[in-house]
Amino acid sequence: MNEKTAFKPCDLVIFGALGDLSRRKLLISLYRLEKANLIEADTRIVGIDQHEWDDPGFVEIIHNSLQEFLNETIDEEIWARYSARFSYLKMDLTQLDQYQRLRSVINGSSRVMVNYFAVAPFLFTNICQGLAKSGVLNEESRMVMEKPIGHDLKSSKEINDAVAEVFSESQVFRIDHYLGKETVLNLLALRFANSIFTTNWNHNTIDHIQITVAEEVGIEGRWDYFDKTGQLRDMLQNHLLQILTFVAMEPPVNLEAQSIRNEKIKVLSALRPITRENAKQKTVRGLYSAGEINGKPVPGYLEEEGANTESTTESFVALKVAIDNWRWAGVPFYLRTGKRMKFKRTEIVVNFKQQPHNIFKESFADLPSNKLIIHLQPREGVEIQILNKIPGIDENIKLQKTKLDLSFSDIFKNSKIFGGYEKLVLEAMRGNPTLFLSREEIEQAWTWIDSIQDAWAHMDAVPAPYAAGTWGPKAADKLIARDERAWEEEPEE
Amino acid sequence: MNEKTAFKPCDLVIFGALGDLSRRKLLISLYRLEKANLIEADTRIVGIDQHEWDDPGFVEIIHNSLQEFLNETIDEEIWARYSARFSYLKMDLTQLDQYQRLRSVINGSSRVMVNYFAVAPFLFTNICQGLAKSGVLNEESRMVMEKPIGHDLKSSKEINDAVAEVFSESQVFRIDHYLGKETVLNLLALRFANSIFTTNWNHNTIDHIQITVAEEVGIEGRWDYFDKTGQLRDMLQNHLLQILTFVAMEPPVNLEAQSIRNEKIKVLSALRPITRENAKQKTVRGLYSAGEINGKPVPGYLEEEGANTESTTESFVALKVAIDNWRWAGVPFYLRTGKRMKFKRTEIVVNFKQQPHNIFKESFADLPSNKLIIHLQPREGVEIQILNKIPGIDENIKLQKTKLDLSFSDIFKNSKIFGGYEKLVLEAMRGNPTLFLSREEIEQAWTWIDSIQDAWAHMDAVPAPYAAGTWGPKAADKLIARDERAWEEEPEE
Repeated sequence: MNEKTAFKPCDLVIFGALGDLSRRKLLISLYRLEKANLIEADTRIVGIDQHEWDDPGFVEIIHNSLQEFLNETIDEEIWARYSARFSYLKMDLTQLDQYQRLRSVINGSSRVMVNYFAVAPFLFTNICQGLAKSGVLNEESRMVMEKPIGHDLKSSKEINDAVAEVFSESQVFRIDHYLGKETVLNLLALRFANSIFTTNWNHNTIDHIQITVAEEVGIEGRWDYFDKTGQLRDMLQNHLLQILTFVAMEPPVNLEAQSIRNEKIKVLSALRPITRENAKQKTVRGLYSAGEINGKPVPGYLEEEGANTESTTESFVALKVAIDNWRWAGVPFYLRTGKRMKFKRTEIVVNFKQQPHNIFKESFADLPSNKLIIHLQPREGVEIQILNKIPGIDENIKLQKTKLDLSFSDIFKNSKIFGGYEKLVLEAMRGNPTLFLSREEIEQAWTWIDSIQDAWAHMDAVPAPYAAGTWGPKAADKLIARDERAWEEEPEE
Repeated sequence: MNEKTAFKPCDLVIFGALGDLSRRKLLISLYRLEKANLIEADTRIVGIDQHEWDDPGFVEIIHNSLQEFLNETIDEEIWARYSARFSYLKMDLTQLDQYQRLRSVINGSSRVMVNYFAVAPFLFTNICQGLAKSGVLNEESRMVMEKPIGHDLKSSKEINDAVAEVFSESQVFRIDHYLGKETVLNLLALRFANSIFTTNWNHNTIDHIQITVAEEVGIEGRWDYFDKTGQLRDMLQNHLLQILTFVAMEPPVNLEAQSIRNEKIKVLSALRPITRENAKQKTVRGLYSAGEINGKPVPGYLEEEGANTESTTESFVALKVAIDNWRWAGVPFYLRTGKRMKFKRTEIVVNFKQQPHNIFKESFADLPSNKLIIHLQPREGVEIQILNKIPGIDENIKLQKTKLDLSFSDIFKNSKIFGGYEKLVLEAMRGNPTLFLSREEIEQAWTWIDSIQDAWAHMDAVPAPYAAGTWGPKAADKLIARDERAWEEEPEE
C-alpha cells in the first residue's frame, strides 16, 4: 500500500483541544499533513474543551495557534480546506452525562472515531467512561494517548485498566514520538535488509552501545510534574528504552505490529534488573547547577523560578545496562539523558569491537574501531566511521578515520522529511499500530524502572551536581571509564 | 616514516631510455615525482640506448617526450631541476664489454644503483651479464623489470634464472602497475582496519566476487607480441590474478613485504587448477569482430591492419575460479578481461550473500544483496551498495538501493592522487619491495595459467566472436548465468 491507498476517513475527536499539546503540536502537525494531502477528504475534526466557543471562534484559535507555532506562512488554500474540517463542542470532561453531546457530531457508520486524549492523565478514566456511556463507540473506534502513562507500574496499570474497560488493546494507540522518527524506522531497514549489518549485530562483533538523549532545556517551570517525576521516569522509561528495543531486538518475522511488539517485549524482559545491591555501580544521578548554555548564563535547578529547594529529583541519569540474552551477552548498553546539557542531541552509537590485531601501528597505536552513529536529534541521519587509506604516495599505508553518511543520498534529496509527530498522528488515523506502544511493553519498562527507583530511594546519596552546559556529573564519565570506555566525543556543531 | 624521510639517493639507470616505455611512461612519471618534490636532490638519471646522442641532445628528447605525453604545460623551474639530473650513454646492450662505460657515471659508494630494464625481455640476460662484468654493482643495487616476464612457466624461469645469477631476489623489483593504484592499497586498509569488513570477508557472508578488466583498445598493431600471447597471458596472468590476491589473501601478520608476499603466494597456490577435464565449464574465450565503440565503427581482430588472419588468439577471456582454502570454500571468483569492450573499466565487485529472510517484500520480492564495488579504472574509488528506508510518511517501510562512496571524503579532497606507475617507480627508488612481485608469485601464476593454455590447446573450439563495443561473447554471460548469477550491470557513464 502507499499514500494513495484509501483509508477510512475519521472523526478525529481532540479532548483538550485548547490545551498546550493540542495547540502547539497536534493542530500544527495536522496542518502539515493537510498540506501534504495526507488527510482523507471526508475526515472531520472535533475539538472538545471546557470553554464556551462557537465553531468560528474555535477556528480562529486554531489560526492563531498556527501563526504562533507553525514556523511558516499559512497557505490560504490549505487553510480553507483544513479549517472546514473543524467543529467545536464545549464539555466538562468530568461530567459523564455531557458526553451525550458527542452524538450530535459523531456518525460512526461511515467514519472511524479516533479519540485523542490531549489532557492530563487524571481525566483519562472520566473520558473512557463518558465515551462508553455516550454510545458513540464501536469496534473500529480508537483512542490515542501520550506519556506520562503513569509514574510507576501501579499507576500505569490503573490507567491501562481504566482504558481497557472501554477499549480493547488493539484500539489503543500509545504514542512515543521518538518512534515516528525516520531514523528509528531506518534502523529496521539497516539492520534487517543489509547482510553486512545483520551479520555484525551481536556480541561477537559489537563492543558496546551508547544511547544519549541530551536536552538543552531545564525544568521550564514544570515543578508540579517534573519535580515529582525526574529524568529517569520522564525520559528514560519511555524514549531511551524504546530506542534500545529497536537497536537490540531480534529480527522480527515480518513487519506486522504484533511481530515487532513481540520482539520489543523480549528485549525489555531481558533487561537485567538494577537493584539496591548494584545500583551504585550501575547508575549515576545528576542535578544541574548554574552554568552557561550557548554563552548565556542559566540558573541551577534549585535556583529556578518556583523551585522546590528541597528537591532531590534527578535532572540527569546515566545507566549501564545489560541485556541477558544470547545476542547481547557481555555487551553493555550505556544510556544517559539529562537536561541543561551542552546542546540538544539524541544519538545511538554502536561501537564495534576493535580489530584483534593491528597491522597499521604507524597510523594508530590503538586502532579505532568502526562505529555506526545514528543521529535522531537535532538532525536525523546515519553515519558510519571507518578507516581508509589516506590517498598519497607515502611509503607507508596511512589511515584516517572517515565518517560517511549512510542515509543521505542524492536520490533522497527531494524527499520531504516529516517529524515523528506527524508520522504518528497519521498512523493513528490510518489505524496502523506498528509504531505505538503495547500495554505489555509499558508495564515491562515500568517494572524495570521501579526497581531502580526503589534502589535510589534506599540510597544515602543525592544526585551529583553538574554545571548547566556540560555533559553531566563526573560520575557519569567514571561509570563508563571503569570499563575502559568513553562517551562518544562531542561532534563539532 | 613519511615523505620527508631521507632515502638514499639513486643512480637511476634506464636501459632503453629512448624506447616507448621510457618516453611515454617512465620519464613522464619521473617528472611528476620531481614536481611533487619526491625525488632526492642527489639522485641522478642515466639514459642508455643504442643511438648516438650527447647529454644536451638526450635532454631535448626528454623535453619533446614531455611535450607529447605529459598532458600539462612543462613548468620551467621544475624542468630546470629535472633536466639537470640526466646524462646519456650510448651502448649496444648485446656487447658485454661496452658495459664498462657505466664506470664513468656510476659511483656506488654514495648512491644506490637502480637499473630499470625498459627493453624487450630478450635483452634481460645480456644486461644482467654486462652489469655483472662491469663491476659497478654492489649489494645495494637493484633491478626493475616489467611484464612480460615470460609467456609460460618455463620461459619465466629462464628470465628469473638469468636475473638471479646477478641479483638476489631482494634486489629484484618486478612491476605490475595495478599494484600501485590507490584503491588496491586501500583494499588492505578496508579489509584489515575495519572490523565490519574483516568479519564479513569469507564464505559465510560473501556469495561471489567478480573482477573485470575491460579495455577499449584493440590489438593496436602489436601482432608480434599480442597475437602470440593472448589476453589470458597478457592481462589475466598478471593484473587480474594480482588483484585477486589482494581481495582474497588472509590477513598478513604485518605490512612487511615478505608477510604480504607470503599471503599472496598462499592464494595463488590455492587456485583450483583448470584442466583439460573442466576447461569447457570454467573458461570462455572470445575474439572481437567488427563493431562500434563510442559511436565509431572499428574493425574486427582479423580485419585489423597487419592481421594474422589465421589467428586463434583470444582477445577476451572469462573464467570461473575456485580458491581451495577455508576462507573461500564455495565462493566463486568470476574473472573477465577483454579488448574492444564497451568502455575501459576495471572493477572488483564483492557480492555479499542475500539476507536469509526478507521482511521487506513490499519493496523487493527479491532483496538485493549488499555489494562492495571497488573501482580501479578509469576512476578510482570504493562504493558500498546498501538498502535504506526511503524517507517519507508512507504506511510501509519502503527501501531503495543506495550506493555510497566509501573512499571519497571531504578530508581527502585536496590530496593529489598519483597514478600507479609513479607510485611504483618511487617505491623502487626508495627500495621498498612490498608492492612488487616475487619470483614465487609469478611462477605460481604461470603454473596455473599454463594448465589453462594446455586445456585450450587440446580443445576443438576456437574463441567465440563478439562484436567490438560489447561485453564479450554470449558464452561469458552463460558462464555466470549457469550459477544463477549475472555480471555487474554497466554503470551509467
